[in-house]
Amino acid sequence: MEKFEINILGCGAALPTPRRLGSSQVVNIREKLFMLDCAEGTQMAFRKSRLSFSHLQAIFLTHLHGDHVFGLLGLLSTFGLLGRIQELHIYGPKDLQRVFQPQIDYFCTDAPYRIILHEIDTQTPHTIYEDRSVIVTTLPLTHRVPCCGYLFQEKPTPRHIRRDMIDYYHIPIAHINNIKAGMDWTQADGTIIPNDRLTTPPDPVRSYAYCTDTAYRPPLADLLQDVTCLYHEATFTHEHALLAKKTHHSTATQTAEIAKAAHAHQLILGHFSSRYKTEVPLLQEAQQVFPNTILAEDGMKIVL
Amino acid sequence: MEKFEINILGCGAALPTPRRLGSSQVVNIREKLFMLDCAEGTQMAFRKSRLSFSHLQAIFLTHLHGDHVFGLLGLLSTFGLLGRIQELHIYGPKDLQRVFQPQIDYFCTDAPYRIILHEIDTQTPHTIYEDRSVIVTTLPLTHRVPCCGYLFQEKPTPRHIRRDMIDYYHIPIAHINNIKAGMDWTQADGTIIPNDRLTTPPDPVRSYAYCTDTAYRPPLADLLQDVTCLYHEATFTHEHALLAKKTHHSTATQTAEIAKAAHAHQLILGHFSSRYKTEVPLLQEAQQVFPNTILAEDGMKIVL
Repeated sequence: MEKFEINILGCGAALPTPRRLGSSQVVNIREKLFMLDCAEGTQMAFRKSRLSFSHLQAIFLTHLHGDHVFGLLGLLSTFGLLGRIQELHIYGPKDLQRVFQPQIDYFCTDAPYRIILHEIDTQTPHTIYEDRSVIVTTLPLTHRVPCCGYLFQEKPTPRHIRRDMIDYYHIPIAHINNIKAGMDWTQADGTIIPNDRLTTPPDPVRSYAYCTDTAYRPPLADLLQDVTCLYHEATFTHEHALLAKKTHHSTATQTAEIAKAAHAHQLILGHFSSRYKTEVPLLQEAQQVFPNTILAEDGMKIVL
Repeated sequence: MEKFEINILGCGAALPTPRRLGSSQVVNIREKLFMLDCAEGTQMAFRKSRLSFSHLQAIFLTHLHGDHVFGLLGLLSTFGLLGRIQELHIYGPKDLQRVFQPQIDYFCTDAPYRIILHEIDTQTPHTIYEDRSVIVTTLPLTHRVPCCGYLFQEKPTPRHIRRDMIDYYHIPIAHINNIKAGMDWTQADGTIIPNDRLTTPPDPVRSYAYCTDTAYRPPLADLLQDVTCLYHEATFTHEHALLAKKTHHSTATQTAEIAKAAHAHQLILGHFSSRYKTEVPLLQEAQQVFPNTILAEDGMKIVL
């Protein structure tokens, strides 16, 4: 299977601690890297993860709260010092340009690469990035400021060739791509060899959804049907449901309800309030609704 | 002796690494805290040091390069979330307001405390802060942008009372402050008891100078005469002297020359270029000129 990995650089909430940074992740799809949010300390955590800065294609910001963006300037500035020349696209909600362009102009004047800021509509799901292997779509969320999550969907890959059968039927190389695409093979005598004798099915298509920060938003599940892995904020336990409502965050139970309604394969809880000494109660709470749940942790890598 | 400690939160140069943050220190004078520069990651390092956020009086920024200021917004935002109400004064060169006020307005709108930005003249040494125990003066430096260092000078403390002698001469409590201030004591019969029989000398006055970033600037030594402890950047070894000149930084040798000319008691080297795998050559180079030199390290505490 091609590489599709999630690197969690930070998964804390508003107050970063020495143990937990604010929100930041790197999605690695076939060695192309995509960053999700960029909290203070992200560039150091990125280095620690041993991922390559130069493979970063784009940064997707969910919303303009400090614990999701305060590492951006440092990262951009470091890329400049390291001599990056490939342009970098940054996607985020309204105000992205007003807030960051003056800072980029001031602190990254000598940067040898172009930084392109894209303000996106956070309230209508739409595709904002696409290449040969992946499509990235926005996921409207409900927070105190404009906010959206992001869904990464792998594009279907071709069927796998059965080399033994290709040799057996003496199929020329020039036809292999057609066979991978699902076509049958017609021999010189007119005999048709059905494709499923020549190939095995393609790898299943995988997907990853990053949903933070958000109040409980049941319609979100419709956009996440069958998602391979769902990262969803679970700032509070059910005990603090009122506080969650007031601050537009989710409880672990609500998060698990979303995963269940979406028929997600796996749920990762993140964005934990720093009030909890341990996140085990959040995990237990979610597992009662959606058993295949794990807790995010800074430095964790998830292989899809 | 009253407390006078330097806490080095970060001492790296432009490229922060997991081992070394950019520039940031906290000076602790009798439990009043003063911050020097504020690189990305400062708030996490501050927490790790177990110093109290609420004792922070002021922040002094040397210049507006990212590796000295990218932690400011995160720190200010965290203070707001923690409910700080005491106003906070931030001192820095020209452009401080233009660059940071819009960001503060955007990200710290709900902060329950006032943040006051002071733009200072970096090219004339002058006092910018004074309280009962300390005077802070600017130290003009030579860098690619307006930049100054800061000199912390303890105010002289009173002489120490000799309790045994006070008891012996039956001196009333109301007169103790005069005696501490150096006055003699006249007994009922007119006999004069000289002050040095009643007291011992005050603690020596200590001082700390923070000088980064700067090219080699010999006149700086005149402002640092007899300084107790000098922190001075030593970005490069002598081997890279041309690069130091070009980028307006200092070599370890130049730094040691400043310490020697200033008759400093101790020198701390900092702001090491990330190109060096080890800083030992920088230390050895400086010690040839000024033996009482040490290398700064993230997390180090210096007791004056």
